[in-house]
Amino acid sequence: MGRSITVSRRETNNAESLNNGVDNNDKEKGIVGFELEAPADSVERLFEVKEVPTWKQQLTVRAFVVAFLLGVLFTFIVMKLNLTTGIIPSLNVSAGLLGFFFVKTWTKLLEKSGLLQQPFTRQENTVIQTCVVATAGIAFSGGFGSYLFGMSDIIAKQSNEANASTNIKNPALGWMIGFLFIVSFLGLFSVLPLRKIMIIDFKLVYPSGTATAHLINSFHTPQGAKLAKKQVEILGKFFSFSFLWSFFQWFFTGGDDCGFSSFPSFGLEAYKNKFFFDFSSTYVGVGMICPHLVNVSLLLGGILSWGIMWPLIEDRKGDWYSASLSQSSLHGIQGYRVFIAIAMILGDGLYNFFKVLGHTSSGLYRDFFDKKSPVSREGEDGGVGEAGKSYDEQRRTQLFLRDDIPSCFPIVFYCGIAVISTAVLPHIFPQLRWYYIAVIYVVAPTLAFCNAYGCGLTDWSLASTYGKLAIFTIGAWAGASHGGVLAGLAACGVMMNIVSTASDLMQDFKTGYMTLASPRSMFVSQVIGTAMGCVISPCVFWLFINAYDDIGIPNSEYPAPYATIYRNMSILGVEGFSSLPKNCLTLCYVFFAGAMAVNALRDSLGARFAKYIPLPMAMAIPFYIGPYFAIDMCVGGLILFIWQKLNRAKADAFGPAVASGLICGDGLWTLPGSILSLVGVKPPICMKFLSRKTNLRVDHFLSS
Amino acid sequence: MGRSITVSRRETNNAESLNNGVDNNDKEKGIVGFELEAPADSVERLFEVKEVPTWKQQLTVRAFVVAFLLGVLFTFIVMKLNLTTGIIPSLNVSAGLLGFFFVKTWTKLLEKSGLLQQPFTRQENTVIQTCVVATAGIAFSGGFGSYLFGMSDIIAKQSNEANASTNIKNPALGWMIGFLFIVSFLGLFSVLPLRKIMIIDFKLVYPSGTATAHLINSFHTPQGAKLAKKQVEILGKFFSFSFLWSFFQWFFTGGDDCGFSSFPSFGLEAYKNKFFFDFSSTYVGVGMICPHLVNVSLLLGGILSWGIMWPLIEDRKGDWYSASLSQSSLHGIQGYRVFIAIAMILGDGLYNFFKVLGHTSSGLYRDFFDKKSPVSREGEDGGVGEAGKSYDEQRRTQLFLRDDIPSCFPIVFYCGIAVISTAVLPHIFPQLRWYYIAVIYVVAPTLAFCNAYGCGLTDWSLASTYGKLAIFTIGAWAGASHGGVLAGLAACGVMMNIVSTASDLMQDFKTGYMTLASPRSMFVSQVIGTAMGCVISPCVFWLFINAYDDIGIPNSEYPAPYATIYRNMSILGVEGFSSLPKNCLTLCYVFFAGAMAVNALRDSLGARFAKYIPLPMAMAIPFYIGPYFAIDMCVGGLILFIWQKLNRAKADAFGPAVASGLICGDGLWTLPGSILSLVGVKPPICMKFLSRKTNLRVDHFLSS
Repeated sequence: MGRSITVSRRETNNAESLNNGVDNNDKEKGIVGFELEAPADSVERLFEVKEVPTWKQQLTVRAFVVAFLLGVLFTFIVMKLNLTTGIIPSLNVSAGLLGFFFVKTWTKLLEKSGLLQQPFTRQENTVIQTCVVATAGIAFSGGFGSYLFGMSDIIAKQSNEANASTNIKNPALGWMIGFLFIVSFLGLFSVLPLRKIMIIDFKLVYPSGTATAHLINSFHTPQGAKLAKKQVEILGKFFSFSFLWSFFQWFFTGGDDCGFSSFPSFGLEAYKNKFFFDFSSTYVGVGMICPHLVNVSLLLGGILSWGIMWPLIEDRKGDWYSASLSQSSLHGIQGYRVFIAIAMILGDGLYNFFKVLGHTSSGLYRDFFDKKSPVSREGEDGGVGEAGKSYDEQRRTQLFLRDDIPSCFPIVFYCGIAVISTAVLPHIFPQLRWYYIAVIYVVAPTLAFCNAYGCGLTDWSLASTYGKLAIFTIGAWAGASHGGVLAGLAACGVMMNIVSTASDLMQDFKTGYMTLASPRSMFVSQVIGTAMGCVISPCVFWLFINAYDDIGIPNSEYPAPYATIYRNMSILGVEGFSSLPKNCLTLCYVFFAGAMAVNALRDSLGARFAKYIPLPMAMAIPFYIGPYFAIDMCVGGLILFIWQKLNRAKADAFGPAVASGLICGDGLWTLPGSILSLVGVKPPICMKFLSRKTNLRVDHFLSS
Repeated sequence: MGRSITVSRRETNNAESLNNGVDNNDKEKGIVGFELEAPADSVERLFEVKEVPTWKQQLTVRAFVVAFLLGVLFTFIVMKLNLTTGIIPSLNVSAGLLGFFFVKTWTKLLEKSGLLQQPFTRQENTVIQTCVVATAGIAFSGGFGSYLFGMSDIIAKQSNEANASTNIKNPALGWMIGFLFIVSFLGLFSVLPLRKIMIIDFKLVYPSGTATAHLINSFHTPQGAKLAKKQVEILGKFFSFSFLWSFFQWFFTGGDDCGFSSFPSFGLEAYKNKFFFDFSSTYVGVGMICPHLVNVSLLLGGILSWGIMWPLIEDRKGDWYSASLSQSSLHGIQGYRVFIAIAMILGDGLYNFFKVLGHTSSGLYRDFFDKKSPVSREGEDGGVGEAGKSYDEQRRTQLFLRDDIPSCFPIVFYCGIAVISTAVLPHIFPQLRWYYIAVIYVVAPTLAFCNAYGCGLTDWSLASTYGKLAIFTIGAWAGASHGGVLAGLAACGVMMNIVSTASDLMQDFKTGYMTLASPRSMFVSQVIGTAMGCVISPCVFWLFINAYDDIGIPNSEYPAPYATIYRNMSILGVEGFSSLPKNCLTLCYVFFAGAMAVNALRDSLGARFAKYIPLPMAMAIPFYIGPYFAIDMCVGGLILFIWQKLNRAKADAFGPAVASGLICGDGLWTLPGSILSLVGVKPPICMKFLSRKTNLRVDHFLSS
């Protein structure tokens, strides 16, 4: 589903691969409803009568007010997802729908009061979209659920290794905002000069950016607006339902293990192994957005790990690992969970790194030496292609080149920020020497270009893989005694932010190109969105860690799985395999190789059979946190599947709206929910699940 | 909804009045879907090509096998309703649909195997319907939730009055079956000779019987069968859902106050005052069948009593009644609940008794002296009327008179059974002298005729009102020292059975008349159905009281409210008002007069405004057991209301099927549920609701 994957790509370190490798039918499901509206001939002829506003007119105050509000909402959603499972679906359809809805309401109100100065254009819509996604993107690339939170002592305490204060840095509002401001803008400047080459000359596809452009274009045709209105209506209904449902659930969570999120739907035994439906409308919605294969892979991973492997390993307790260890010790059963998951993630990541690298170099080779091929990739751009440029292409190119940005501007800024950053970062992380940073900044533009190019070709961002590379290289360079663990994590953050924002920006340029939005307004919007994200995300994160005291604790509501995984990767990189429990390394090798083999199998079988082969990356996540959210997602997927069987067209047009409503409603509740928790208002009732025997004891105790 | 009210009338002592006094639009809702199919001109011309089987051919084995199975299912449902709230909705649409479905499947299977000897006719369908409703009717008129269970020591123990063993008779399989066999057939014979006068000469309408006939006729036209198939499909879906939901709920009820039926949906404070949604699909379904006015009246009654009055009275604890009394003592707060409810029920009942008596006598007067008026009531019977008989009427009359039953036959049987009964009943209830019984049997045929006639005119059976009259008269005659309480209850049973079956039979004759079913087959079916009911109902009741140990206990899952109410009526009749707590009598007078006044107001305002005035009878029930089931029913009513707003035609056609599915699925679960309980399989989990404070204590206790 096109742009959906933008957000996935930019907001999650695994959804990036989750949404890929899936056949196109599944991918495009979110957009079918809109693409119906795209005229077969030429989009721009439809819009010919409409004047294109200047780049300054595209940047309206209302756009940024709406973008700010939506940015806060989506930051809450992404943050919650970060801290619960790390799986973040594409939120772009909901961002698109909500943005459209807000501004439409706004302009309607203004129109009635006679104050409307400017109509709502698709360019303005693109500006909002870009800004919101940039803001929410920081919630992912800021690493609040991964590298940044992995530095804290909450995560560090879970293992005995690298626990020295030199390897710990607890989150605080000040340094987090500073850090983000220093590293988040470099990526934007690093690829800015290349936009003409990539968009106009190479004609890269950027499937997500293209899909978003289709979505926005369709909103502004009369027919598309009608469909959008219906979708917004449905989104609103499920939004309210989901919000009220979360609100209702809240009343019953007055204690540990209370409420619907501890509902042993399949019995207490299954619950102990994390098999239960936790009534989270977020993950039901996520399951409706993710391809069926992802849902099934997650469930398979959960069954394989929590259903089979962990119980078998726990039978070896006292032999493979000491029986006296706590459930959450990394030297015990938890170690197997974390390290096998890491092995699979690395195996899958490495395989795809080389695969995309191959695609990138062969694509680059073709772009330079064989000028014909890129045109054939431009099917969505107006049709013609062979006999000169189509009308769409001409008009778009003309407007794309109209507002130029001088090349010296980004270069100056990149160098300036790089120097400041190199000077300032060691003050935030003394373990990160200035020369590590300098090296990163020399290498980064190349990697940023590679990632932006590969993403344009395959819709696949490897930001988190580049981040992991930084963890291992910089960590090993620094060494354990010099705080290598922390240096690795910080380097990961620097690298990820650059690489991730670079491909995001290029994606947005593609969207802007197709909606006739000026590159200047795109860039400004991206910068403002990023700046908002640098402030909003740390604040939201701060709210979360202050409101809930179980963030980062294994088996709690907010286990922040990737924080543990990233920290342990860093420890592995610095200290080697010495800390692993018995047989764990062997198992890791098996799963590392297995992940690669399964990927190779998928690629060799072709799309027809590949859709029946699970994705190793998706299977890895439940290894650590358990399959309960996979059950939610499968429920969502099943609902969509049945809906598709009953009425394919309706399911395709409104499924994403339902899913977005479910996700956003639940996400919005986290705002009042965490504020209530912060000011000390606690839920009044505990819905408790006891075995009959325990219940008898409790009844006896209560009546005595 | 026509026949629906038959079942209400025959199966509940309050739904009888609940379904009346409601404007016709609401009443007919269940049948709209079918009536669409009724041709404007003549029904019988449609069926002209089909041969009418002889009366013996109408009585097939398969019909009785299906009727037996459905009879067991509906007995379970009615018994559960009896013991929970005493509110029993019309189950005839579900009985009709399920009967049609079973026999259709049966004939289809036989057709495929080549063994089909006889096609499925509407006459056979009528036979099944009659038999099922007769069987389930015994579950109501047998008094398992009212007079019969009111004799037991479980109910007796709740008050200090009339607790002597002479006023107690505990349920046992043997005497219950014997008692039912002795009293249940008299009603059938008492009105059998009058069928020609009432159906052909008086042309009584019997709205429920007519509606059922329409339903069955519509099933057997090609278009109607298609609709019926769809309805059966929807019924099946909701049936399965409801069954599985009940099954799921069961797992979480491993203890007192555990599970969804104790869900404090509106908080713990509201729960203490019985305001909560208990997730019972039965009552959601019941709410969809009952008119909106009934649902709202129930809720109003609940708010008035549990929301306002009881909390105020409880504030007077220690002043109005002793503070040391238990919650369930009739001298304390429970007394106000029971006796004010009785006052309202009696006020409403008495008002309607005189009203229907007035209608009956004026109707009889017209039937004898003014021959024209009845014809105008025959609109549904083919149209013509004035210029001689219509084709429908001619054909129906011809077939109705073809299979005659000699008059001496019922007279001989009535006298024979009456003599045996008079001799045997005193052996079952020594308190019930033979001359009481003889008097009842002399008066009964007149009352049975009155009831059958009034019911034909107004669709309103007064069986339970006649029963209450018997309680007071026979109870007072016997006197307290001679077991008057028990004598009153037993007399109530004798009277209710006669009066109730008499009007049922006549209703069925009307249905048979309109579906060309022979009166003989109708009568035989009714007798067989009654006989089945006399065995099935006591067995099901026995299963219930053995499986659950809280039957009849106030505030439990099965409070059997009418058992307490009937017993206390009997005590009142025998002992007077001495046992009532302070100010209770005054309140009773107020509510008695209020019930009459509200009814008078309803009648004087006319249908247009009457639909906004609550029904006192409906308001009385939550006075005793609390408003929780009223909340379920309002949820059901609300769902239907919204559905009607969205798509009136669909809601009317399929609403009853959804409701039936919900009721029957939950009802069927009571069968395995009670068997599980009987063999000692207990649910494994307790879903408990604790306040946060209590939860802390419990957590502390469990971890220590």
